[in-house]
Amino acid sequence: EIFEHICARFQPRVLAGRRILMTAGPTYEALDPVRGITNISSGRMGFALARACAQAGAVVTLVSGPVSLPTPPGVTRIDVKSAQTMRDVVMNAVGAHDVFIAVAAVADYRPVAPSTEKIKKSADRLSIELTRNPDILADVASLPAPPFCVGFAAESSNLDTYAQGKLVAKRLKMVVGNLVQDGMGGINNQVVIYDAKGRYPLPRASKEEVATGIVAHLASLLN
Amino acid sequence: EIFEHICARFQPRVLAGRRILMTAGPTYEALDPVRGITNISSGRMGFALARACAQAGAVVTLVSGPVSLPTPPGVTRIDVKSAQTMRDVVMNAVGAHDVFIAVAAVADYRPVAPSTEKIKKSADRLSIELTRNPDILADVASLPAPPFCVGFAAESSNLDTYAQGKLVAKRLKMVVGNLVQDGMGGINNQVVIYDAKGRYPLPRASKEEVATGIVAHLASLLN
Repeated sequence: EIFEHICARFQPRVLAGRRILMTAGPTYEALDPVRGITNISSGRMGFALARACAQAGAVVTLVSGPVSLPTPPGVTRIDVKSAQTMRDVVMNAVGAHDVFIAVAAVADYRPVAPSTEKIKKSADRLSIELTRNPDILADVASLPAPPFCVGFAAESSNLDTYAQGKLVAKRLKMVVGNLVQDGMGGINNQVVIYDAKGRYPLPRASKEEVATGIVAHLASLLN
Repeated sequence: EIFEHICARFQPRVLAGRRILMTAGPTYEALDPVRGITNISSGRMGFALARACAQAGAVVTLVSGPVSLPTPPGVTRIDVKSAQTMRDVVMNAVGAHDVFIAVAAVADYRPVAPSTEKIKKSADRLSIELTRNPDILADVASLPAPPFCVGFAAESSNLDTYAQGKLVAKRLKMVVGNLVQDGMGGINNQVVIYDAKGRYPLPRASKEEVATGIVAHLASLLN
């Protein structure tokens, strides 16, 4: 805590006065009381970014899926499980914020009919019907008076195409892209930042260092 | 570490000389490089039991699915993700052990055809075809010279019926049953032990205390 205060003293307060709403981690879509669909997101990139934003002077609200990470000092954290709950919390909170950063790896699909009882194993084959989840970032970005919206894109290939497509299609101000194999679930990350003017690769580094680079770019666009 | 040694000194060495193979945690069955099916198991019950067995003098090998827990002192840990890999590791190691305790919440099904590329969200509906995973405990218990086999049963209802059915069907020596809502994913647990002679409910307690009770019952059956 004291260490955080000292760190914060030596950080440029480039986000002072900004109110930032963020999501982080995976979501968990229940199949029954025991099983569910999730993804390999550890939440580390989002938590590192929340910490870096707070150290840069922002007021940060972090909506987190199920992760095993401590809350960064000074950050207000709201824990959720499913994409639908994450959307409800975000849409309820977004009006009080002027930046929205969607880092969470939100499940694109959820089971159509989750079971209230544990499904017994009997059949050799089983088929699960899934339906599309809400697109939280698209919903926020298409509000009448949207906040400054930043997206994340984790792809297994064709990063430039997908990330720039996301920037345009969802009318975002900035997208942070990475290849799944470069960062997801791990300690380090290698990202490319995309905005209306171009693409800016950051060097491979710890997620804490990458977060500092993202904050610097975000601040340059905001100020 | 020193604390563990002191604790171990005051534990009755009721499992001295026993070689115990255990599984713990959930398994993770990949749908694509990012997404997968898992369950709410935290691994805490299995890790607490591994620790209690080691403190009681056993040599413990712990095969763990993806969890965020430190390895108990003195325990040999092998990390795996999928049920198939867990089975391979267990079948390879079981010959050198005289007790097998299956605590892991192994996924009963896995996707038939996981995708090597991240599945793009396009369709409104999606259907996933699943196929049965191997039943690791049943495979071990049906070996020509099986170890002393202990199963765990986490059910959402009808605990006695399912747990006693498991004891008989898989020809186990002991089953530890609990209701999902009583323990899975949490800090405490309330279990019932089943063996050939009857059912023995343990009081609701921390998973560490429950583990001590399970070790005492196990030792009484082994000695």
